[in-house]
Amino acid sequence: MSMTIKKAVVLLSGGMDSATCLAIAKSEGYDCYALSFNYGQKQIAELAAAKKIAANFDTAHQIIDISSLSKIARSALTQQDLAIPDFEQRSEVPITYVPARNTIMISFALSYAESLEAECIFIGASAIDYSGYPDCRPEYFTKFEELIALATKAGINGQVIRIKTPLIALSKAQTIEAGIKLGIDYRDTITCYRADNSGKACGTCDSCHLRKKGFLDLGIDDQTLYA
Amino acid sequence: MSMTIKKAVVLLSGGMDSATCLAIAKSEGYDCYALSFNYGQKQIAELAAAKKIAANFDTAHQIIDISSLSKIARSALTQQDLAIPDFEQRSEVPITYVPARNTIMISFALSYAESLEAECIFIGASAIDYSGYPDCRPEYFTKFEELIALATKAGINGQVIRIKTPLIALSKAQTIEAGIKLGIDYRDTITCYRADNSGKACGTCDSCHLRKKGFLDLGIDDQTLYA
Repeated sequence: MSMTIKKAVVLLSGGMDSATCLAIAKSEGYDCYALSFNYGQKQIAELAAAKKIAANFDTAHQIIDISSLSKIARSALTQQDLAIPDFEQRSEVPITYVPARNTIMISFALSYAESLEAECIFIGASAIDYSGYPDCRPEYFTKFEELIALATKAGINGQVIRIKTPLIALSKAQTIEAGIKLGIDYRDTITCYRADNSGKACGTCDSCHLRKKGFLDLGIDDQTLYA
Repeated sequence: MSMTIKKAVVLLSGGMDSATCLAIAKSEGYDCYALSFNYGQKQIAELAAAKKIAANFDTAHQIIDISSLSKIARSALTQQDLAIPDFEQRSEVPITYVPARNTIMISFALSYAESLEAECIFIGASAIDYSGYPDCRPEYFTKFEELIALATKAGINGQVIRIKTPLIALSKAQTIEAGIKLGIDYRDTITCYRADNSGKACGTCDSCHLRKKGFLDLGIDDQTLYA
């Protein structure tokens, strides 16, 4: 193991934000280790997208199977009896919220980061064009960094493992703009909550709405295949 | 779902501490939902013990498969190339430490608790007779409660999900004393890091050392079968 190249664990869902986040981590010189999760999500097609994106960026990639989560977590993304809603303006956290999903994923990333002696964890969360999930807000990530200092052997030894959120204050349009400069082909990413293996997006869920809006705001042709 | 009985998620490894913790949660009147994890641990026999203990206490029980963790986490409990050491006095965190294990398990418990509308998570951690793991210290659990408030929809809605650690300040002898009063047969629990399906404990690892010391300090016959 080289001691000179800094390592990072990158959470990679296969969507546009995490793909952009990986591209940013690479551009900052990190030796990246990407993690994806099978958590029993309906949009399981995103994992093939994650695999392709990791390969495009020449990045080590592992898919972690936590599909047992769907036995205990109630969410429209994982439960067949809860339908995924179309986009609408709302003040409540939507039913696509998966309880503690980011906390679980960051915990695995932390385990990997400590084992690799990586110095940070990248996550492509945004608190601008997002669905209002509590675990996407800046104060959440700040608190998680405080937890890491207490949770780990690394923390006891004075080593800091940071959580980096380069997209946290970016609009979707700004994210797409950054990603295009870094060589991302967004046709390789899957955003849709209803994505199936046909490769077509529904165009009407929260996630599709935000994606469409991003391309529209930026004034760039959206090449996503919609059903 | 009844709104009158308070619910709790209980982390149940199959060892003596988590068994005692379940007994305490039941004695406090909680409707308990026990969670165990296959994280690729060598002492996989503890999961059968967890199942038996949950049945003894008439408690719903799920085993969550996160065995993929052993692909990314370095620990003597999960890696074949790292031997489990015998007990010794040391100042370092031992190599049986599994990076972020408690953070991962509490995250799953949190997902379950939020889905069930449970009011707390019980974990049988002790900071007295323990192996020096960072994620067993009181300040770690306090910080995790702060994270929960920010991480969850429940938190946004002003609902508090507590982490309860009834054994945190108990010696192993005090834990055993409490458990016996609550009807635990400690022969049903598996403590040994080298436990195999023979049902015999090594008697020399950290975990066995602490267990033996507990019975000795309490002046009670230790009926554990040692190899």
